[in-house]
Amino acid sequence: MEYFTSDYLEGCHPKVLEALTRTNLEQTPGYGLDPHCEAAAAMIRKRFQCPGAAVHFLTGGTQANLTVIASILQPYEGVLCADTAHINTHETGAIEATGHKVLTLPGRDGIILGSQVSIAAALQGDWEHTVRPGMVYISMSTELGTIYDLSTLSDLYHVCQDNGLYLYIDGARLGAGLMSPICDIQPEELAGLCDVFTVGGTKNGALFGEAVVIVNPALQKRFRYMMKQRGGLLAKGRLLGVQFEALMQDDLYFTIAKHAVDQAMLIRDALLEQEIPLYVDASTNQLFPVLTDDQLEAIEEDFVLETWERVDEKSTAVRICTSWATRPESVQHLIETIRKL
Amino acid sequence: MEYFTSDYLEGCHPKVLEALTRTNLEQTPGYGLDPHCEAAAAMIRKRFQCPGAAVHFLTGGTQANLTVIASILQPYEGVLCADTAHINTHETGAIEATGHKVLTLPGRDGIILGSQVSIAAALQGDWEHTVRPGMVYISMSTELGTIYDLSTLSDLYHVCQDNGLYLYIDGARLGAGLMSPICDIQPEELAGLCDVFTVGGTKNGALFGEAVVIVNPALQKRFRYMMKQRGGLLAKGRLLGVQFEALMQDDLYFTIAKHAVDQAMLIRDALLEQEIPLYVDASTNQLFPVLTDDQLEAIEEDFVLETWERVDEKSTAVRICTSWATRPESVQHLIETIRKL
Amino acid sequence: MEYFTSDYLEGCHPKVLEALTRTNLEQTPGYGLDPHCEAAAAMIRKRFQCPGAAVHFLTGGTQANLTVIASILQPYEGVLCADTAHINTHETGAIEATGHKVLTLPGRDGIILGSQVSIAAALQGDWEHTVRPGMVYISMSTELGTIYDLSTLSDLYHVCQDNGLYLYIDGARLGAGLMSPICDIQPEELAGLCDVFTVGGTKNGALFGEAVVIVNPALQKRFRYMMKQRGGLLAKGRLLGVQFEALMQDDLYFTIAKHAVDQAMLIRDALLEQEIPLYVDASTNQLFPVLTDDQLEAIEEDFVLETWERVDEKSTAVRICTSWATRPESVQHLIETIRKL
Amino acid sequence: MEYFTSDYLEGCHPKVLEALTRTNLEQTPGYGLDPHCEAAAAMIRKRFQCPGAAVHFLTGGTQANLTVIASILQPYEGVLCADTAHINTHETGAIEATGHKVLTLPGRDGIILGSQVSIAAALQGDWEHTVRPGMVYISMSTELGTIYDLSTLSDLYHVCQDNGLYLYIDGARLGAGLMSPICDIQPEELAGLCDVFTVGGTKNGALFGEAVVIVNPALQKRFRYMMKQRGGLLAKGRLLGVQFEALMQDDLYFTIAKHAVDQAMLIRDALLEQEIPLYVDASTNQLFPVLTDDQLEAIEEDFVLETWERVDEKSTAVRICTSWATRPESVQHLIETIRKL
Repeated sequence: MEYFTSDYLEGCHPKVLEALTRTNLEQTPGYGLDPHCEAAAAMIRKRFQCPGAAVHFLTGGTQANLTVIASILQPYEGVLCADTAHINTHETGAIEATGHKVLTLPGRDGIILGSQVSIAAALQGDWEHTVRPGMVYISMSTELGTIYDLSTLSDLYHVCQDNGLYLYIDGARLGAGLMSPICDIQPEELAGLCDVFTVGGTKNGALFGEAVVIVNPALQKRFRYMMKQRGGLLAKGRLLGVQFEALMQDDLYFTIAKHAVDQAMLIRDALLEQEIPLYVDASTNQLFPVLTDDQLEAIEEDFVLETWERVDEKSTAVRICTSWATRPESVQHLIETIRKL
Repeated sequence: MEYFTSDYLEGCHPKVLEALTRTNLEQTPGYGLDPHCEAAAAMIRKRFQCPGAAVHFLTGGTQANLTVIASILQPYEGVLCADTAHINTHETGAIEATGHKVLTLPGRDGIILGSQVSIAAALQGDWEHTVRPGMVYISMSTELGTIYDLSTLSDLYHVCQDNGLYLYIDGARLGAGLMSPICDIQPEELAGLCDVFTVGGTKNGALFGEAVVIVNPALQKRFRYMMKQRGGLLAKGRLLGVQFEALMQDDLYFTIAKHAVDQAMLIRDALLEQEIPLYVDASTNQLFPVLTDDQLEAIEEDFVLETWERVDEKSTAVRICTSWATRPESVQHLIETIRKL
Repeated sequence: MEYFTSDYLEGCHPKVLEALTRTNLEQTPGYGLDPHCEAAAAMIRKRFQCPGAAVHFLTGGTQANLTVIASILQPYEGVLCADTAHINTHETGAIEATGHKVLTLPGRDGIILGSQVSIAAALQGDWEHTVRPGMVYISMSTELGTIYDLSTLSDLYHVCQDNGLYLYIDGARLGAGLMSPICDIQPEELAGLCDVFTVGGTKNGALFGEAVVIVNPALQKRFRYMMKQRGGLLAKGRLLGVQFEALMQDDLYFTIAKHAVDQAMLIRDALLEQEIPLYVDASTNQLFPVLTDDQLEAIEEDFVLETWERVDEKSTAVRICTSWATRPESVQHLIETIRKL
Repeated sequence: MEYFTSDYLEGCHPKVLEALTRTNLEQTPGYGLDPHCEAAAAMIRKRFQCPGAAVHFLTGGTQANLTVIASILQPYEGVLCADTAHINTHETGAIEATGHKVLTLPGRDGIILGSQVSIAAALQGDWEHTVRPGMVYISMSTELGTIYDLSTLSDLYHVCQDNGLYLYIDGARLGAGLMSPICDIQPEELAGLCDVFTVGGTKNGALFGEAVVIVNPALQKRFRYMMKQRGGLLAKGRLLGVQFEALMQDDLYFTIAKHAVDQAMLIRDALLEQEIPLYVDASTNQLFPVLTDDQLEAIEEDFVLETWERVDEKSTAVRICTSWATRPESVQHLIETIRKL
């Protein structure tokens, strides 16, 4: 059986493993105050062209989200996001556990617009009986494999700035988002389009690790206190530095993300050729075809996919997920299987 | 320069690294639901003779402490511990951030007694104007390198049981504690002496990782929800399973902990020979000699130690810390330097 | 100008004031441990036929909601409710500030059904990546002036019981709800239809005060700790006891609630006579007519109403609210004004 | 039996009751946005000479403390206070429930000094492994009936300002503190000696109510959101305004506080005459004599006192508490009883 169920099935990219092995017996100070973290932060600041950004490393996505959001909001403030946002659906109330309400807006394929945020901010009207929106959370790529284009994101960020809201981009799948064939945002533009973003390692080549890039100086103060308090300050913090050094070296991060997306696009072509409908028309490393029961059964002889949602009496939306580790021969095998449907 | 500043200076034990490398390209389900976590849990249950225990893996000590404690206490309850307890002094209010008060008792070299807990429980008297003690937190070995002996721990646990309090043992340095030459508790006895304990990997051979062993069935329910909500459910959870498999294999965990303690005891002998006073008479992998400024200066020519506390006008308590990675030749070098003081 | 903007415009019913005056110089123990609280609790237990219930008194509705909900839920659990529920819309994230997610279901005129709860519970499926529903919150009457009928409420409670969910009824406007002409639930039946309910005094005759009636013995333990911790244990707690004694005496609570509803029903008849559409067809002490700008202007010459929502370019839904203190002559005046529209 | 157990045994001062009765049927907007709250706030600003202060009204002391403290601190900050502070001992972890650690300093009769705060701030040293002190909490008068003199308080406030710490004075017993015969602080000086203080009504003439006076403009923003979220925004907020109007009228607040203190001082004289030792030498409306079992038995024939602490095998520290409502004839009776001991 070949697995297309998620993008965290394997360990790490060989170059990352090599770096961990090479540095294993080095002695360094703990808690991220080591040369590797320093170097990795510098590489990230350079690649994303944000020389004044504060860069910190956390082990996982939920941890990054709750730490960033709790560090930004006042106690009576909440975070606006799409109803499908990871923080709303799949983090077991991690944000609420820090005391803050998640304020949802209906997403269109996982995407929210500046106009929606604008209305939400106006409705609050600084009235103390309701939660004050303090920031906006989006993901890039989204939980549905879609992406923000430059115009939509620029507009959203302007609305945020006009309304005193901070914009945070969850980049758990940032690589796949920026490497989408339809993406018109360059990595070096991202820092100018938000206040904080993350560069996700877990789903793109690392054993684990998310880099938190705090672009806005107003949000940089004492973030390490938040990391420690929330259980996210890794003792051997250099493990995160070493991994991100390897990922940023020679743009490996984006090279392998592009591989994942390219493989997915090949599968997408095969699905469309077969006129298989798409639940969402994603353009990254996640695909959501709607398969009939017969089709699904045929595919499941050789492949494991993730069930997403039962669509009607005889068809199901499934998720097909590729990654840096997806082998082209597996993809060819899957494509052939699709063509036979 | 040679470092004796902490027990998390290096990466992981070579056998752990070998296991991570060997399994790197395996495909497994995420979030700890994989064969490696299952196997590691079984090995831990067997070694500590607690067949009914629930075993979970988290990445760090503060994370383990806050998740365990928040999972046990009612909202109006607090956790009793020594004033020197890690949760009271060095976790940036992580426990309070989950809503619970840390209730301190004066420790004697980091150790609290059943009699103290008994008095604290009696004083509360179920009066709703004060925080109700709901559990007791101790560490083994303690933050000061000392250990509980069997009689003290048994007594403490009985007092806890008599007063409806759960007992949690933070085992961030469990290996060193149990391998102390003066320890009269066997690993297989530990589970009978508490409700929950952790087996610390970070400071004893792993890249990172703490195994949470929930012995008491009443505390096992839905612990994974707590892990996820608090940001501690690692996506590639099998990394923790793989590491603990390697550590439990052939008792590696205790073999390397014994190495660390043995090296520390050699240094301790040298200190006592030189009649250098000890701030605390520790018997594990941490030593706390009180050095004069001259002595410290002499040692610091070749070694880096951790300053603990300025004791008087001309002397300082320092911490000397050994680990699985401490080289015997470094220790010999340090001993010779001490002998020349 | 005459005000129909809310049901908390005045102080308290004269009989309540008389009781406060009469008892003013009595000396009693604090924090609700006094004979008046005891007597009031007994009267409530008797009137609502729940001899085993624990009855506590808090000063306000948000305080009651957050204290009750935080006392019931496990840390990883949330509370299911209608999207229009007070805890979701008008409590500034008070529930989230205790760490819990509010899980919304689309209400039909403020009402949710057992079938919706059943689906929500099934969807969760005990999967640790999502918030576990731990209880259901409804209000009676609802924020939109509607009520649950016996069949709907019974069905909802059975679904709750079948799914391990507690049912909590926010009775901030319980009097008006039970006195609605279309209500088929008797006060003495209520305790059999939920686990916890409140009897709201603030909006029905008291200066302030909500009685929390914990019917389910499993939820009664140490509730006073929760009250104290959340700032709700009133020092001169007997003030709440004295007021509820007066309200329960000779069924004053329901007599004055009926007055409020009766006055509203007279206004409702006038609105329907004039063929003025209703935003929601409420049957308690709140009405939500949709008025054209001209109609609104005419009414606002003599009356102050509360704007609810702009409905279209030329009409607005407003709220007309009556109370125990609404004078029949004011109502007649309003009716005449409506008839002239 | 006559009660000297607390200063909240009775309802309210007759003038307060008269004001509540007189205004009972007025119609006002809710939530403190009414003319009475506005007028009371103006009277407080004038009396305490702080024209720029924001004044809000809450119902109780624990509620005031938790709302003020949670509004000031960053998530990783804690509040410094004496070990005997009410927030540390008698609020069931209300501060911790908002996520913040209470950082205690050993008090001398309930009082902490600038020098202690200075050391605590230096020890933290902006190190993210420990809770950062963000503010200092003191009470005036203290839980032990003692008071800060001008020099001690000035020094403390300067230390706070020098260390970036806010100073909050819990004035639950502010009247008694400022009316102490040994107090050298004038009411009009208080606002210059702290950032926030409260004027306690519950223990000095009101049915309930604490005025929160936020002197420092940096702390005034959106405090009403905090009040609402924490369950403290009273629906009929004007009840608080009406009461504080009555208390501030003709300086009633201080006149009745002086009565309470004067009565206590008469009792204190009698105790000293009899050479009865004092557990703490308090100078406000609380006294803490140490009585032998025989003496206590004799007094308890006619009076109820509060047991404070068993001091040795045959004596007990008790609390004698006077208030605005204490009758001089009761005090004379008690004094005579003491003289007969």
